Amino acid sequence: MDKNEEKQREEEREQVVSPWEVSSSGKIDYDKLIDKFGCQRLDQSLVDRVQRLTGRPPHVFLRRGVFFAHRDLNDILDAYEKGEKFYLYTGRGPSSEALHLGHLVPFMFTKYLQDAFKVPLVIQLTDDEKCMWKNLSVEESQRLARENAKDIIACGFDVTKTFIFSDFDYVGGAFYKNMVKVAKCVTYNKVVGIFGFTGEDHIGKVSFPPVQAVPSFPSSFPHLFSGKDHLRCLIPCAIDQDPYFRMTRDVAPRIGYHKPALIESSFFPALQGETGKMSASDPNSAIYVTDSAKAIKNKINKYAFSGGQESVELHRKLGANLEVDIPVKYLSFFLEDDAELEHIKKEYGAGGMLTGEVKQRLAQVLTELVERHQVARAAVTDEMVDAFMAVRPLPNMFD
Amino acid sequence: MDKNEEKQREEEREQVVSPWEVSSSGKIDYDKLIDKFGCQRLDQSLVDRVQRLTGRPPHVFLRRGVFFAHRDLNDILDAYEKGEKFYLYTGRGPSSEALHLGHLVPFMFTKYLQDAFKVPLVIQLTDDEKCMWKNLSVEESQRLARENAKDIIACGFDVTKTFIFSDFDYVGGAFYKNMVKVAKCVTYNKVVGIFGFTGEDHIGKVSFPPVQAVPSFPSSFPHLFSGKDHLRCLIPCAIDQDPYFRMTRDVAPRIGYHKPALIESSFFPALQGETGKMSASDPNSAIYVTDSAKAIKNKINKYAFSGGQESVELHRKLGANLEVDIPVKYLSFFLEDDAELEHIKKEYGAGGMLTGEVKQRLAQVLTELVERHQVARAAVTDEMVDAFMAVRPLPNMFD
Repeated sequence: MDKNEEKQREEEREQVVSPWEVSSSGKIDYDKLIDKFGCQRLDQSLVDRVQRLTGRPPHVFLRRGVFFAHRDLNDILDAYEKGEKFYLYTGRGPSSEALHLGHLVPFMFTKYLQDAFKVPLVIQLTDDEKCMWKNLSVEESQRLARENAKDIIACGFDVTKTFIFSDFDYVGGAFYKNMVKVAKCVTYNKVVGIFGFTGEDHIGKVSFPPVQAVPSFPSSFPHLFSGKDHLRCLIPCAIDQDPYFRMTRDVAPRIGYHKPALIESSFFPALQGETGKMSASDPNSAIYVTDSAKAIKNKINKYAFSGGQESVELHRKLGANLEVDIPVKYLSFFLEDDAELEHIKKEYGAGGMLTGEVKQRLAQVLTELVERHQVARAAVTDEMVDAFMAVRPLPNMFD
Repeated sequence: MDKNEEKQREEEREQVVSPWEVSSSGKIDYDKLIDKFGCQRLDQSLVDRVQRLTGRPPHVFLRRGVFFAHRDLNDILDAYEKGEKFYLYTGRGPSSEALHLGHLVPFMFTKYLQDAFKVPLVIQLTDDEKCMWKNLSVEESQRLARENAKDIIACGFDVTKTFIFSDFDYVGGAFYKNMVKVAKCVTYNKVVGIFGFTGEDHIGKVSFPPVQAVPSFPSSFPHLFSGKDHLRCLIPCAIDQDPYFRMTRDVAPRIGYHKPALIESSFFPALQGETGKMSASDPNSAIYVTDSAKAIKNKINKYAFSGGQESVELHRKLGANLEVDIPVKYLSFFLEDDAELEHIKKEYGAGGMLTGEVKQRLAQVLTELVERHQVARAAVTDEMVDAFMAVRPLPNMFD
């Protein structure tokens, strides 16, 4: 092994992105991830195309590159342009009661896609996965799935176009048949290569990838897509889920379906800085949708990693390092006003604004977002959850 | 490796018994199998106990040692004696249209157990397994499952005590939850040790053992056994299925259930002789339930391996070798009259009866059995199949 190889291996060790682990010794190198996973960069021409086709401004997450990678998005848009609709598929592993802001990102974006393209959406709650990986009981996983469904519904999805399901409730029938069809096409060696399972992992883990794969196929939802086996599927998700869908795309044509298209986001960083996803075990690493205004303010002031200089004098002279500054990063996710964001970046980067001022603005923005979510979630009744999760046709899903 | 070790390995290579392969260079050594699998021999005192508890003569398959091994049968009988009922679970992998006599053995015996103990029965048709192992389409596996269900129903099961299900129809809900619970408790290394899977096997195979495991747990059938989580389960099956239930018994107490008890049969031999199970790919190795009287007679005369001597003179002098004689072996399965069987064995073994005479009697016995089955099967309507396979309570299942 020569020096270059050694260096490359070292770098690979430093950056781990899988559905169960995102870690990096420095900032995640997303360019490297695109190369490694073999997906495509979502460039400006695609953003422009989405704007043109939907007749509305692209979502903040799209125009600011939060969703930065894709697979076959062009094909989906080609078909859409010719009048061929598609459906959206996203999901969540219900491992905790309270969602943090990072959890909201794919749902906020999916809500925009649903509204902009006027298409149906299926949302998978992988309570079986969390039961197996997190050693939760079946009952607790199911309870968390329902609790999380309330937060998801609070994002504003259209009940006439949206089917939310938990695996423990829904696996069976056509869905199970597709699981078997997928499982037949994937060797154990293959899943070891994709997911890194070991012989001491339980077989539940080995059995799970087909469960996350098959919502990509319309026939898994006969109450929605009966007779529409060639309906295309677009999956908005964080890029750590890419391994599941690489596997799915590999299998799809062999069992008679389109490969699902993907639109993939970077990770929402921890308050402490951009070295991976937030840690569920450290409540101070994230803003939760259940946090109070006071808690939000405290967390931001105390934990949000600042790119500002050590003294006011130095800061006025050198300005903030925006590359590592978490308040600016968070604002770029959630401050909708492009002009104000540019103003803050310019002033803060030049030393005209201090960290405290930026943090104060961020606290305002996040408090507003979180309080809006809390009001919406409080209005979600059990009956509404039942309505979203009912196995039913959606006659107006393409209107 | 010394000579003894070499010899032992050689012997182990010669006898392979797994759910997918039964082969042996000579007769299967069932004593060795009992030792290897770690089950118990079903001795005369247990047969007597079954007779005493059920108040009826033990089935031919029991009193002649076709069912020769067990696990925890004593526990089931202890509980039964105290008034605690149990349920029966057996199954079939629907890989072919026509069943042969060997396929009928567990069902004929299960029917006897159901009648004698007056207990409910669940019958699993593993269409998912056959779809994965035999590379059948989902649709073809399901069609075969329904066709096989007709043959099973023709064995005379009581519809008020019997639930037949196909995995493709029934997997889901409580059944799937138990699959996940089992899968969590079994490592990949463990299933490799039990079933011999390799890295090039597809993950459908790795995922399947929990599917065959969970009918052992009453909570997999909430429409039958709701609130009866501690109901015991007795599984009549051929001994090649033992690996599935070793795994199941290992897991059961860890997820709060009784270990299922087992009553296990030897294999019904091929016409060509006792070196394993019959080959589905060679129609002349077995009598099928669809065979005509003429076909039965021809197959027996042409293919049934005889222990008789080469010439009539030699035969009269030495008698038949009953140890290897297939007609006598088949009669010991299906000729109910103990006295007549003893008479034939004595006369044939002493040279008083010729192979032709024994074969003629066997043809009579099997023709009667097969024709009775054909009449019964012709009377099985689609409505009856639907009735047996309906997910429904069985209010009188213990009467």
